[in-house]
Amino acid sequence: MEKLTVKTKKRNELIDITKPVKKVIESLGVENGICVLFCPHTTASLTINEAFDPSVMGDIIFSLDKISPDYPEFRHMEGNSDSHVKSSLLGCSLNLIIKDGKIMLGQWQGIFFAEFDGPRTREVFVQVVKA
Amino acid sequence: MEKLTVKTKKRNELIDITKPVKKVIESLGVENGICVLFCPHTTASLTINEAFDPSVMGDIIFSLDKISPDYPEFRHMEGNSDSHVKSSLLGCSLNLIIKDGKIMLGQWQGIFFAEFDGPRTREVFVQVVKA
Amino acid sequence: MEKLTVKTKKRNELIDITKPVKKVIESLGVENGICVLFCPHTTASLTINEAFDPSVMGDIIFSLDKISPDYPEFRHMEGNSDSHVKSSLLGCSLNLIIKDGKIMLGQWQGIFFAEFDGPRTREVFVQVVKA
Repeated sequence: MEKLTVKTKKRNELIDITKPVKKVIESLGVENGICVLFCPHTTASLTINEAFDPSVMGDIIFSLDKISPDYPEFRHMEGNSDSHVKSSLLGCSLNLIIKDGKIMLGQWQGIFFAEFDGPRTREVFVQVVKA
Repeated sequence: MEKLTVKTKKRNELIDITKPVKKVIESLGVENGICVLFCPHTTASLTINEAFDPSVMGDIIFSLDKISPDYPEFRHMEGNSDSHVKSSLLGCSLNLIIKDGKIMLGQWQGIFFAEFDGPRTREVFVQVVKA
Repeated sequence: MEKLTVKTKKRNELIDITKPVKKVIESLGVENGICVLFCPHTTASLTINEAFDPSVMGDIIFSLDKISPDYPEFRHMEGNSDSHVKSSLLGCSLNLIIKDGKIMLGQWQGIFFAEFDGPRTREVFVQVVKA
């Protein structure tokens, strides 16, 4: 298992980690298989979406704030229940397919670390299994 | 790795792909293992839900339109930011378990391609790993 | 493939299944690999979130009820379309990484069975693949 470190700068932020993820996976020399990316945090997620136009990331963050606002009824005392909800909505693991030594992403897809309670220093776990 | 092609007909649509997915996986002759389905698009998803009553699919699409409306504040110029949000909410990969050569779905479950910016011709990638 | 049984007591409930999941996986004696947890139900999910303060689980359930209410426009006659929507939002499968015979969860993470149409007796499927 490999680890990546991600430093986030804002409370809510999508950070493109496609390049470091590709570098780690391709260094393992697996020709065909699958990869699991795992986020070991409860106020963050991993997601795949458009990596070309940064306004897409901004629009996703905007919409997630509408979907999961900070309700006055929340009982958790840390003021980040909205972040926990977002974490479960987007999920903390991702699957990638490896073919001919490369990650099979679509033309516009990038892999994003989704921070919902930053800024923090975060980790991503990477495990690869051969087909 | 195998590929399926899905032709969608509406902007928002859930298409049952259980049969072609089963056919591809079962043709690979793996007795026990796991399967990753991957959608290489940023305005579509893969999801598992009830395949018996089609009104469930309609209700899911109705509710997703309420959850992720087309906000006037969106900055992405293509008019499909709501589709990108839906794609991250439902996710672009799925895991299936293979046991005795068959996919272990529940009684009411079907596998759906979720189109959020159709009509388009889409692909689904399939990778199987033996246990 | 292994199976766990979960008995739920409420309509909406997050039940911590971390201990039984760990027990099953660690009994299989796999040193390094990945695990797929699969929920074979269409009105329930699996999710990973904070297992320390139970108020987080309550806040997640509260927020999901706001995100997916019971709309009068729903056509499915069983009165649980909101549950089907929640199931697709949180998803029915999870990935875990196994390293040195242990599941690699973060410090605050627990694995939860998310019931959205209980009380019922539910199952979770567990499949492990070696790295």
